[in-house]
Amino acid sequence: MAEVRIGLVGAGWMGKAHTNAFVNAQLLFGSEFGKPVFEVVADVNMDLVKQASRQLGYARYTDNWKEVVADPNVDVVDIATPNAFHYEVAKAALEHDKHVYCEKPLTLSAEQSKELAELAKQKGVVNYVGYNNVMNPATAYIRELVASGKLGTIVRFSGTYDQDMLLDALLPITWRHINKYSGSGALGDLGSHLFSVSQVILGDIKRVNALSKIVIEKRQKQAGSSELVDVENDDLIVITAEYENGAIGTFGTSRIAAGRKNYLSYEIQGTLGSVYYSLESLNEVHVYFTSDESRDRGFRKVFLGPDHAGFSALNPASGIAIGFNDIKILEVNQLLSAITKGTDYVCDFNFGWKIDRTISAILMSAAEKRWVDVL
Amino acid sequence: MAEVRIGLVGAGWMGKAHTNAFVNAQLLFGSEFGKPVFEVVADVNMDLVKQASRQLGYARYTDNWKEVVADPNVDVVDIATPNAFHYEVAKAALEHDKHVYCEKPLTLSAEQSKELAELAKQKGVVNYVGYNNVMNPATAYIRELVASGKLGTIVRFSGTYDQDMLLDALLPITWRHINKYSGSGALGDLGSHLFSVSQVILGDIKRVNALSKIVIEKRQKQAGSSELVDVENDDLIVITAEYENGAIGTFGTSRIAAGRKNYLSYEIQGTLGSVYYSLESLNEVHVYFTSDESRDRGFRKVFLGPDHAGFSALNPASGIAIGFNDIKILEVNQLLSAITKGTDYVCDFNFGWKIDRTISAILMSAAEKRWVDVL
Amino acid sequence: MAEVRIGLVGAGWMGKAHTNAFVNAQLLFGSEFGKPVFEVVADVNMDLVKQASRQLGYARYTDNWKEVVADPNVDVVDIATPNAFHYEVAKAALEHDKHVYCEKPLTLSAEQSKELAELAKQKGVVNYVGYNNVMNPATAYIRELVASGKLGTIVRFSGTYDQDMLLDALLPITWRHINKYSGSGALGDLGSHLFSVSQVILGDIKRVNALSKIVIEKRQKQAGSSELVDVENDDLIVITAEYENGAIGTFGTSRIAAGRKNYLSYEIQGTLGSVYYSLESLNEVHVYFTSDESRDRGFRKVFLGPDHAGFSALNPASGIAIGFNDIKILEVNQLLSAITKGTDYVCDFNFGWKIDRTISAILMSAAEKRWVDVL
Amino acid sequence: MAEVRIGLVGAGWMGKAHTNAFVNAQLLFGSEFGKPVFEVVADVNMDLVKQASRQLGYARYTDNWKEVVADPNVDVVDIATPNAFHYEVAKAALEHDKHVYCEKPLTLSAEQSKELAELAKQKGVVNYVGYNNVMNPATAYIRELVASGKLGTIVRFSGTYDQDMLLDALLPITWRHINKYSGSGALGDLGSHLFSVSQVILGDIKRVNALSKIVIEKRQKQAGSSELVDVENDDLIVITAEYENGAIGTFGTSRIAAGRKNYLSYEIQGTLGSVYYSLESLNEVHVYFTSDESRDRGFRKVFLGPDHAGFSALNPASGIAIGFNDIKILEVNQLLSAITKGTDYVCDFNFGWKIDRTISAILMSAAEKRWVDVL
Ligand SMILES: NC(=O)C1=CN([C@@H]2O[C@H](COP(=O)(O)OP(=O)(O)OC[C@H]3O[C@@H](n4cnc5c(N)ncnc54)[C@H](O)[C@@H]3O)[C@@H](O)[C@H]2O)C=CC1
Ligand SMILES: NC(=O)C1=CN([C@@H]2O[C@H](COP(=O)(O)OP(=O)(O)OC[C@H]3O[C@@H](n4cnc5c(N)ncnc54)[C@H](O)[C@@H]3O)[C@@H](O)[C@H]2O)C=CC1
Ligand SMILES: NC(=O)C1=CN([C@@H]2O[C@H](COP(=O)(O)OP(=O)(O)OC[C@H]3O[C@@H](n4cnc5c(N)ncnc54)[C@H](O)[C@@H]3O)[C@@H](O)[C@H]2O)C=CC1
Ligand SMILES: NC(=O)C1=CN([C@@H]2O[C@H](COP(=O)(O)OP(=O)(O)OC[C@H]3O[C@@H](n4cnc5c(N)ncnc54)[C@H](O)[C@@H]3O)[C@@H](O)[C@H]2O)C=CC1
Repeated sequence: MAEVRIGLVGAGWMGKAHTNAFVNAQLLFGSEFGKPVFEVVADVNMDLVKQASRQLGYARYTDNWKEVVADPNVDVVDIATPNAFHYEVAKAALEHDKHVYCEKPLTLSAEQSKELAELAKQKGVVNYVGYNNVMNPATAYIRELVASGKLGTIVRFSGTYDQDMLLDALLPITWRHINKYSGSGALGDLGSHLFSVSQVILGDIKRVNALSKIVIEKRQKQAGSSELVDVENDDLIVITAEYENGAIGTFGTSRIAAGRKNYLSYEIQGTLGSVYYSLESLNEVHVYFTSDESRDRGFRKVFLGPDHAGFSALNPASGIAIGFNDIKILEVNQLLSAITKGTDYVCDFNFGWKIDRTISAILMSAAEKRWVDVL
Repeated sequence: MAEVRIGLVGAGWMGKAHTNAFVNAQLLFGSEFGKPVFEVVADVNMDLVKQASRQLGYARYTDNWKEVVADPNVDVVDIATPNAFHYEVAKAALEHDKHVYCEKPLTLSAEQSKELAELAKQKGVVNYVGYNNVMNPATAYIRELVASGKLGTIVRFSGTYDQDMLLDALLPITWRHINKYSGSGALGDLGSHLFSVSQVILGDIKRVNALSKIVIEKRQKQAGSSELVDVENDDLIVITAEYENGAIGTFGTSRIAAGRKNYLSYEIQGTLGSVYYSLESLNEVHVYFTSDESRDRGFRKVFLGPDHAGFSALNPASGIAIGFNDIKILEVNQLLSAITKGTDYVCDFNFGWKIDRTISAILMSAAEKRWVDVL
Repeated sequence: MAEVRIGLVGAGWMGKAHTNAFVNAQLLFGSEFGKPVFEVVADVNMDLVKQASRQLGYARYTDNWKEVVADPNVDVVDIATPNAFHYEVAKAALEHDKHVYCEKPLTLSAEQSKELAELAKQKGVVNYVGYNNVMNPATAYIRELVASGKLGTIVRFSGTYDQDMLLDALLPITWRHINKYSGSGALGDLGSHLFSVSQVILGDIKRVNALSKIVIEKRQKQAGSSELVDVENDDLIVITAEYENGAIGTFGTSRIAAGRKNYLSYEIQGTLGSVYYSLESLNEVHVYFTSDESRDRGFRKVFLGPDHAGFSALNPASGIAIGFNDIKILEVNQLLSAITKGTDYVCDFNFGWKIDRTISAILMSAAEKRWVDVL
Repeated sequence: MAEVRIGLVGAGWMGKAHTNAFVNAQLLFGSEFGKPVFEVVADVNMDLVKQASRQLGYARYTDNWKEVVADPNVDVVDIATPNAFHYEVAKAALEHDKHVYCEKPLTLSAEQSKELAELAKQKGVVNYVGYNNVMNPATAYIRELVASGKLGTIVRFSGTYDQDMLLDALLPITWRHINKYSGSGALGDLGSHLFSVSQVILGDIKRVNALSKIVIEKRQKQAGSSELVDVENDDLIVITAEYENGAIGTFGTSRIAAGRKNYLSYEIQGTLGSVYYSLESLNEVHVYFTSDESRDRGFRKVFLGPDHAGFSALNPASGIAIGFNDIKILEVNQLLSAITKGTDYVCDFNFGWKIDRTISAILMSAAEKRWVDVL
């Protein structure tokens, strides 16, 4: 039962969420692997990192992430910074032969992600991208429905990931609006989650066509400041696509979608059945089978439960709701299991690259207003 | 292909709805019976009846319902007056050997209804009470589910019929608030519909226990008048019950239920499955079978369609919505079919009596605050 | 109060539905215009037309539509044939100076529709295309929400019209699968409805990009026959678009969408609010206002009622469900009102052309796999 | 920042859930109070307690709860045994001047609970009953809606708590079926939760009337055994009630409700608005205000978010779902806050007694088939 020693880079929302997930994964799956050891946390914001280290229980803190990746007492480097820093930190961590757990999207470009995926493979370390929705028991269930053939040949995926967190035009600019920190707008931030789910269920995407829009063109530099700066990336983007397997895809994502809170929502239509799902109603999967008797046929509202992979570690019975943080626990369990026991996992850097190349092709399509192949 | 000659008493909302339903029943089922002939319409309001006769296409009009029941050219007397007049008009019509089509509830008391049911039987005429929800294809479907045993032994019926039409305390008094016209409040007006559905599916009720409440105690005599009069009957009533078959029932009904528009809503639980339904979403029945594979088990949202009795006359495919008026057409078709072809029907005066005796027992229970047997 | 004399061409589903709608429009709005007179019905199927004329109440019948358009006793030619015949019949009817009521889509091409629209204008007759969803009180309500600015600047329309009527691969070929009769597949049959709603709310579309798919490539020539013929047009198509007003649109339509029955479903997002709707739950509009107090903010499920244009003629109160046929009545009322009183209406041939040119551009885009301007 | 030392009695589902909640409460609210110290765990099942102590991180274990209540190193005794042992363990713990955290229902009778409540008061220790649904942010929100008067005068509460966990007749008997361990059936197990929510929102209940039913009368003694034993208590019970404030209540609860998984569902109707909620869709509260403009009025589907008390500690934004375990964390935070900082809390033993006396009255009513006052 090996201990796993963690070095965290980035002590914001996700840094905190990861740390809690490490603790809970050990609580729930503790017989399987040892206690997480919180070695060191880094954040450029010194005040924040000091306070975070105390509250989250890290032994040491620093404002220099390079100390973390070089620390001999660190087994896994956990990267929870804004997107732009993922590449640099992950690369350095890999070069120090660390396991790497990196938030999504992996990097800002298909090229960078490809490079990291290859380096990770060469190093033979665990390389995990935080696409937590892949670990949602709903996703596991839907994957099985599709893989088993119960829905027939899949002909269509339609999905959107909409939020309205950034709808208020008076909210000041954030790193998410500036390309050098984020790479893209709603697309990389939210859309990448949608692609992770879509691709884990249906496989790779072949060609894309996109239409992108900045709705709130300028924002305050800081709250209350009269200086305005440009929003550089998509508030809203819509995409049509062809999958390698011949299915048709439509995707959308918006960070300014009035009324939509966490609307990662999609429908998959096959020749024998369909399924739809929304993350806003996290515990409910709707599935339809043409094989049901005609009179009684309808979408079934299935509550997540012990029949769906991952659930039973969290709650003993269907209908007892799980939440966002529970899914992050399942993700960290996968990671810890891979580190301590060498088990398989889906969201490796190669998978991260497959999302990022979809995003890269979409950005090119939106810029050039034409179909672009995903390469 | 016999013509059916109609004499209507009461030219308000239902008078109009019935007339249109006669026309449409002939359009949809015309090959089965002849054109309805609109002989005569009566209403105490002379202006209204004059205008209605023209608009609805009645050959003659009168302000005296006695002319209608005595008219030798009338085959069926259609009673769409406030509840209090049903007894008198129906009795006279029966005595003239007319077929009778009477709006619900049949009368103001179990005794009156019993008397009418016996008289109708003796006369051998068609005697139909307008419990249109019985003819809802959803009800037909749910009856079949229950009767077939697919839901196992039924253990529980929970239902409510809530509206907020009379929530506004500034609305003046109506006949529905005065016992001599209506017999009771929400109970007879809305609750009777709920009982009609419940009893047609589960059979008779044995004992009841009720709790009743007048929320808006006084209302304006007329709109804008400063004179207030007492509201005499239940704005809201709740009931527990035992069915003859051993199932447990809970019922409620309110005419002041904020936000509820036409919420005739119920759930039936059996040992092998359940079903729930709301008239607000008229086309959607939700059914659950324990026999479904555990992983895929959930309430199925079944859209009404040609598999459900009555639907296919209205629309060719499931999901093409039917509405309130469509169901009244199905009711009138039953009536016409009974008159012209002697076919069976559920909502006869005996059935009307079975509802009214439930209501009578409930009123007694609410008054005496104890369990009362339905006799 | 002028009588309107009707000549119907095509006595299938819609022919019957129109006829019933004429009768009901007169019942509901009778004080406004005279009784419809059912002069003559034509259908190439002689057995069917004979029976239909009797059942629907037409004075005469024929298997030659030319008699109908030439009949001096006919005021309005009602065209309910498969799409391919709309152009020819409508043109002939216009040349005989008849009012024309034509089912959707108007014709098989933007050019034909443009020609008809111009001819109709020149003739000064009423020219109505049967896009009944435009007359849905839900559409009226949503139009008002958008037009009033309550939702702010509209940035996005996402919609799909999915059915599974033609999912069963064993169903034989129909006219809907053959381009010379239908012009396109799901696109013209279902998608045209979606565009009618979208364009009446948001205005014209500027550019489109489409991806189309035939899923069931061959079908039996007749039920049970071993001879297979090619399905010629889209079972499924998805489209991205830009509106003239700058909004982004995504559309889809499928006739093989497992589980979807009549899923004309869409969401409109604006900077101050959003609205979504599905025809499967015809009576429910969901609307969100950012101006609501933050704590209490959520999509409101609004039941159609007397506040929404068209409803009050059908039912007196919100929550009393209307259905598909009710909306067709509202359409025919518009038509009759235009004929007898010269009132305005939205769905004229020019509007029909605006849908058809969207469809033409989409077909070109799908064929050439590129963005195409709507001209 | 005082440490809190915990002695747990009962290492089943809830024992584990409590322990995890202690850890997480400290993670989320750690700056407010010290680390929980897991001193000792007791369970009559020696194998289980041994394993649990290791997995959950307790320093010591025992099969004798008396060691726990007497342990000088224990600050708070956490009781997660079957209901029947709550009284004895809690009493002993109080007598040792321990803080007590006891699962619901507090005891098997109003008398026992009253005694404990008085003893706790006298001792001046924290005395907390685990009615976690009271800490649900949804409950907090609804309480505020009612208390603020935004819904007007409350006239009606209708609720049910249904599950189907014990529907399968082949499941063997459990402690929940035997009165000496559980006191009652669905009523105490599930119904008590419903009353906790109802009473915290609407206040005390005055009179009750109940109807109770055992549906599966015998169960296997052990899985697979041919020996059958009697089920002693309600599978299903329904209740009508009057609140002290004049509102009418209806309640139901079933542990054999096919299709219902965790259906703690209720609706509250007031003269100015209504609200409804189901725990199966934990993050969604539906609220209706008559003050909304008539045209736009409808139930609003409000997602839990930072505006609702408790939420923001768990997730930063509305729509990011919380789950069952998150609510237990909020409960434990209340408890720890009360212990370390003396803050107020709702679910004290007096509150527990108020639920238990409702239950006692209900049991008497069901037995005697009459209205019973809650004393
Ligand atoms: N999987 C999921 O559901 C979610 C994933 N994310 C991802 O997590 C990452 C972080 O997002 P949030 O936690 O929301 O952002 P945040 O803004 O809350 O936190 C980021 C932290 O990184 C720190 N930071 C910035 N540059 C740094 C550097 N060079 N070295 C060390 N620290 C640095 C910042 O000071 C800040 O404390 C992003 O890549 C984002 O896409 C975010 C939210 C949800
Ligand atoms: N099945 C259903 O869904 C519905 C049934 N009803 C039932 O229909 C009946 C009528 O209700 P509404 O049409 O809503 O009422 P209404 O108030 O709209 O119409 C009643 C009409 O009866 C007339 N009237 C009163 N006394 C009369 C008399 N002695 N002789 C002739 N005419 C008389 C009134 O002047 C009025 O025009 C009631 O029994 C009611 O319970 C009402 C609405 C829906
Ligand atoms: N607005 C709406 O919601 C709907 C519109 N429609 C439209 O209505 C039209 C008819 O569709 P359906 O009624 O479903 O088809 P259908 O196949 O039920 O009926 C078409 C009828 O036209 C007859 N016909 C064919 N060629 C003819 C000709 N040259 N002259 C006279 N009769 C001819 C056929 O024999 C058949 O009886 C189509 O354009 C369709 O797009 C159809 C259904 C719904
Ligand atoms: N708040 C909530 O949502 C829930 C509350 N509960 C309550 O929690 C309590 C426990 O329920 P579960 O954990 O589901 O039961 P469980 O059966 O999973 O666990 C009970 C444990 O107590 C042990 N035990 C029995 N008698 C004991 C004694 N005299 N001394 C020490 N240990 C003893 C048993 O061996 C068993 O391990 C009950 O009062 C129940 O009503 C249960 C589930 C949910």
